[in-house]
Amino acid sequence: MKLQNDLLLRAARGEATQRPPVWLMRQAGRILAEYRAVRREAGSFINLVTNPELAAEVTIQPVDILGVDAAIIFSDILVIPEAMGLPYEMVEQRGPNFPEVIRKASDLSRLRTADPHRDLSYVLDAIKITKSRLNGRVPLIGFAGAPFTIFCYMTEGRGSKTFSEAKKILYSDPELAHQLIGMITDSTIAYLKAQIAAGADLVQVFDSWAGILSPQQYETYALPYLRRICEAITEVPVTIFAKGAFFAREAIGRLPCSVVGLDWNMDIAESKALIPGKTLQGNLDPCVLYASYEQIRRETKNMLTAYGAHPFIANLGHGVYPDTDPDKVRCFIDTVKEHAAMLH
Amino acid sequence: MKLQNDLLLRAARGEATQRPPVWLMRQAGRILAEYRAVRREAGSFINLVTNPELAAEVTIQPVDILGVDAAIIFSDILVIPEAMGLPYEMVEQRGPNFPEVIRKASDLSRLRTADPHRDLSYVLDAIKITKSRLNGRVPLIGFAGAPFTIFCYMTEGRGSKTFSEAKKILYSDPELAHQLIGMITDSTIAYLKAQIAAGADLVQVFDSWAGILSPQQYETYALPYLRRICEAITEVPVTIFAKGAFFAREAIGRLPCSVVGLDWNMDIAESKALIPGKTLQGNLDPCVLYASYEQIRRETKNMLTAYGAHPFIANLGHGVYPDTDPDKVRCFIDTVKEHAAMLH
Repeated sequence: MKLQNDLLLRAARGEATQRPPVWLMRQAGRILAEYRAVRREAGSFINLVTNPELAAEVTIQPVDILGVDAAIIFSDILVIPEAMGLPYEMVEQRGPNFPEVIRKASDLSRLRTADPHRDLSYVLDAIKITKSRLNGRVPLIGFAGAPFTIFCYMTEGRGSKTFSEAKKILYSDPELAHQLIGMITDSTIAYLKAQIAAGADLVQVFDSWAGILSPQQYETYALPYLRRICEAITEVPVTIFAKGAFFAREAIGRLPCSVVGLDWNMDIAESKALIPGKTLQGNLDPCVLYASYEQIRRETKNMLTAYGAHPFIANLGHGVYPDTDPDKVRCFIDTVKEHAAMLH
Repeated sequence: MKLQNDLLLRAARGEATQRPPVWLMRQAGRILAEYRAVRREAGSFINLVTNPELAAEVTIQPVDILGVDAAIIFSDILVIPEAMGLPYEMVEQRGPNFPEVIRKASDLSRLRTADPHRDLSYVLDAIKITKSRLNGRVPLIGFAGAPFTIFCYMTEGRGSKTFSEAKKILYSDPELAHQLIGMITDSTIAYLKAQIAAGADLVQVFDSWAGILSPQQYETYALPYLRRICEAITEVPVTIFAKGAFFAREAIGRLPCSVVGLDWNMDIAESKALIPGKTLQGNLDPCVLYASYEQIRRETKNMLTAYGAHPFIANLGHGVYPDTDPDKVRCFIDTVKEHAAMLH
């Protein structure tokens, strides 16, 4: 199926495009009334994630409603721990919780390397349905959590500001840490390859908790595993988004990936210099979308100007916040389309 | 009262010392069984903060038990909002909560500029009692939250990963943001001056949520107010610790403060180059204290070596985590004392 809009893929490969592609992290989600209606129908977040028909429906909503240049499959990074044998629950207002966690070597016996066809077929089915319904309108992005970020959840058991239980293992039992992160990496590679086989046109790896590591630990516990993923995935472009890892930008830029995501703390000019030869993605502060239309347009144009001729994919520097007005999101998207076309 | 151990003050002024001083953020706290006993006696965290006798007692505990080179007054950065008319409660396992918050200009009428002698006399009394009981053994550090960080709590109402309610105001009502941050700054200057008059030998300003701002916002909403504080406090050295503000290190280094705190993500060699002519403080990852004694000694020595001849105050890169073994803390402190003496 030839894509009618392949801006995302061409930008990811560093090719010249008449304008940059634009999409938003968490675009399929609570910002849209249409999403909230499907979410109510599903009864729970996890029901929605595991129902391929409904997941496909909310994946496509932002393409129809917002006019983004890519869809990203509606799912959660925590499906990997679940597929490895560590189920999670989603607690209203509090986020994910793992009733059981990994804290010592003997806990590893509970885990298996995920087999995506056995354990994650609901995601693969959602991708197939989405691809069929998108009918080539825009590319579909697949994704997974980065191994270190998934390790954080599997050991800490929930979100945390410090993830001190997770980091404790790095210092007290580095062997366990490497074993677990290695198992997660194997599971993630198999999972991403299955997503690609099912139809994903690009895959993004989210290292959401990269920022809690020291530069040295990031080199030990994160980068080698990201490298393994990048080296294994040769079928489609790979985007690495390591939130808060300002200190690792050069090293991430040396990974064999196509795109590097920037959070809103990462200065674009500085990042262009640190990461030459790669497409960048981001990085408008999601809070800008709380401002006036005029200010959204101004800040978006500033971002476009800062990228200049460097290949990039317009996005926020973090997932869009749930209470953002969809009209403000549309203002961001339209500004990218109009202003960038003018600049080019 | 002449100090018997003035290493902290000499290091803060950039003077040569035979070894660097060492203390830990959150050293007066849950890591010590002796603290937990007093905390139980007090009945609640807020009772302990507001009881000068008990606050003085837990302030001095780490000097006696751990052998640190400075005491830091036991208190909380949220006493300022309370003194301004916005009381908080401390919810077990969840952290601070403000029943009322500031979201619009008319909410400001609830607030007043804090008068430390009227509203915060319990802290000033705790400082006086502590100074008297310390009897010149080590200096006493006073502290306050940075205006932007306090603004975050007063608008968001609780801790948050994104502080999106707080940041929303920066974009939607910058005037309200500047007004409120200005009032907090006035209150903070009066408060720090009162702490100094009561006996504080150095004051530290904690910008705990600096890392959620873009570099540009940090320049607009944080730095000018930090500058006002630094310019107003001429009596004693001032330490600025802006956690996560890696991007603002150069700018913070240009403030008229004496010491700049580093978190564990901030590379020491890089920070020395970015912040010449100032004493640095930090920055061992608090999670290192979960490791073996051997590893604690090794990581601590690496930190000392990285500072080299640059004036510094040994500390962690964040507050010590509550479940840290005090013997591990002692290992860190002793390593600084022994190894640094050897190096000098």
